[in-house]
Amino acid sequence: MNKLSQIYPNDRVTLRDVSLRDGLQLVREVPSTESKIEWMRGEYAAGVRHFELGSFLPATRMPQFADIRDMITAASALEGAHSAALALNDRGATDAIQTDVGEIVCVVSATEEHSNANARRSRAEAIELVRRTAELARASDRRPLVSVGIAMAFGCSIAGEVSQDEVLRLAEAIFEAGADIVGIADTVGFAGPAQIQSLCEKMTVLCGDRPLNVHLHDTRGMGVANAAAALDAGARILDGSLGGLGGCPFAPGASGNVVMEDLVFLCESKGFRTGIDLDALIAVREIPQREMPGEPLHGAIARAGLPPMVEWRR
Amino acid sequence: MNKLSQIYPNDRVTLRDVSLRDGLQLVREVPSTESKIEWMRGEYAAGVRHFELGSFLPATRMPQFADIRDMITAASALEGAHSAALALNDRGATDAIQTDVGEIVCVVSATEEHSNANARRSRAEAIELVRRTAELARASDRRPLVSVGIAMAFGCSIAGEVSQDEVLRLAEAIFEAGADIVGIADTVGFAGPAQIQSLCEKMTVLCGDRPLNVHLHDTRGMGVANAAAALDAGARILDGSLGGLGGCPFAPGASGNVVMEDLVFLCESKGFRTGIDLDALIAVREIPQREMPGEPLHGAIARAGLPPMVEWRR
Repeated sequence: MNKLSQIYPNDRVTLRDVSLRDGLQLVREVPSTESKIEWMRGEYAAGVRHFELGSFLPATRMPQFADIRDMITAASALEGAHSAALALNDRGATDAIQTDVGEIVCVVSATEEHSNANARRSRAEAIELVRRTAELARASDRRPLVSVGIAMAFGCSIAGEVSQDEVLRLAEAIFEAGADIVGIADTVGFAGPAQIQSLCEKMTVLCGDRPLNVHLHDTRGMGVANAAAALDAGARILDGSLGGLGGCPFAPGASGNVVMEDLVFLCESKGFRTGIDLDALIAVREIPQREMPGEPLHGAIARAGLPPMVEWRR
Repeated sequence: MNKLSQIYPNDRVTLRDVSLRDGLQLVREVPSTESKIEWMRGEYAAGVRHFELGSFLPATRMPQFADIRDMITAASALEGAHSAALALNDRGATDAIQTDVGEIVCVVSATEEHSNANARRSRAEAIELVRRTAELARASDRRPLVSVGIAMAFGCSIAGEVSQDEVLRLAEAIFEAGADIVGIADTVGFAGPAQIQSLCEKMTVLCGDRPLNVHLHDTRGMGVANAAAALDAGARILDGSLGGLGGCPFAPGASGNVVMEDLVFLCESKGFRTGIDLDALIAVREIPQREMPGEPLHGAIARAGLPPMVEWRR
């Protein structure tokens, strides 16, 4: 069994928690490193094993991720935990390689317009960065996975509609550049389940044995429905965020990432065992609530509780 | 074309707004009749045509529905609007027949336990009430439709699990008793999309040419995903509630009915034209907000707005 299928087994659904990365990207109050570690350990104790922990960027630009190395070290101390962090330039990739991180995450925009506006580089340049990052990773001792998220894959806040063919072409180029995993992101929550299912079906064919990662936002209330559609189309890695943390700068006041707790309920109700104790996961919400009282937490299952008779209740 | 397929054409999705009935069932402040009519007219102007407006019950028991006759009269003045109201006993059915209501809605519980606790009658007695109501309707001049919702069809807050066979058996008996439409309700929000799809597929076979109505609550965040699953399984009548109004007495603080606005977005994104102008519908939220400031309104699309490039935007 190779490393990829050990970390992301194809025969089960993996839920990656991105609350400590995407969820902290826009917040006004930043929790202390101790609180973030307590938060991660709480989720780990509930059964979560995959954590996106931050971004390798200058602390001056993203102070909330200044402690990314400490977070990775703390994750490495948890048996079976898999850490991931963003590297958005060569410096970030070089820095990431020096750490114990399990997965380096790069981003390629689906549209030239968003790529230029967001990363000040073309999509071709972004893919060349993926190639250099993958080369660094392969040449390193620890050989972290390299995964690439295609942002705005279902519609772009700048360019508008995005063609599926374009996304598939980019995905192919990203694999060719050496990425282990490609993900597609509904960055601004434009898609409904029909769009998600259609692109995911094509992407799972393209991915073959490699798992497909889907990153969803609940901006327009479609998060859980879109996750169900992604699962139906064969996607086996879904990103979620505790309490739905992670707003969108393009839609102020809107809900953020799809809620991890509700995703767990969805997966279990569809017969995918997640290994996550939902009551224990819900209890972790207390930490962001305490550390960032100004950030609203979303999610229905945390308010309503589990149905009394679910057979998978632990 | 018969009356049923005129009111609920099988080749399109019908969204029924239940906010003026289910949404007012548990509220502390009750809007005035004038405000309720303004609310209905606002939704009508946005394109909604199907309204569940209240219940024929003694005003002492449900003061929020004391004006049910006024509401039905107001609906009749709107061309193409279809009104519905609950009749939960013989007196209610007799009263309903005297009005211009387009549809009388009866309820049968999926479980004997809930039937006894909620309606103080057995399921067999509830079906006999359907039979008498259907006979009254057929013998009347206006011949309103008779529809029956099977409450707790996906799990019961009292009895726990509910077998699909039991629901199908009840549905058959309800049709045999003379109902025009049978609906299935996830009254306490226990189901995920797999459960919804599975039962809806069996129900659409049983219904044949008759449309299937599905009534969903968003208690555990599955509302929109469940609606998508119901549509995939061929259900063509979905209940929704403006702002998700309509809490559940068994899950205090939980979200209520599936949000009408988000349902519209879902349907349109799946290629089902609803004829509803989402911006105009969202504007109607101002009325419950003003009249019932203590009741939280739910829904993501109202906060985020429509994506800029949806081709169905009116």
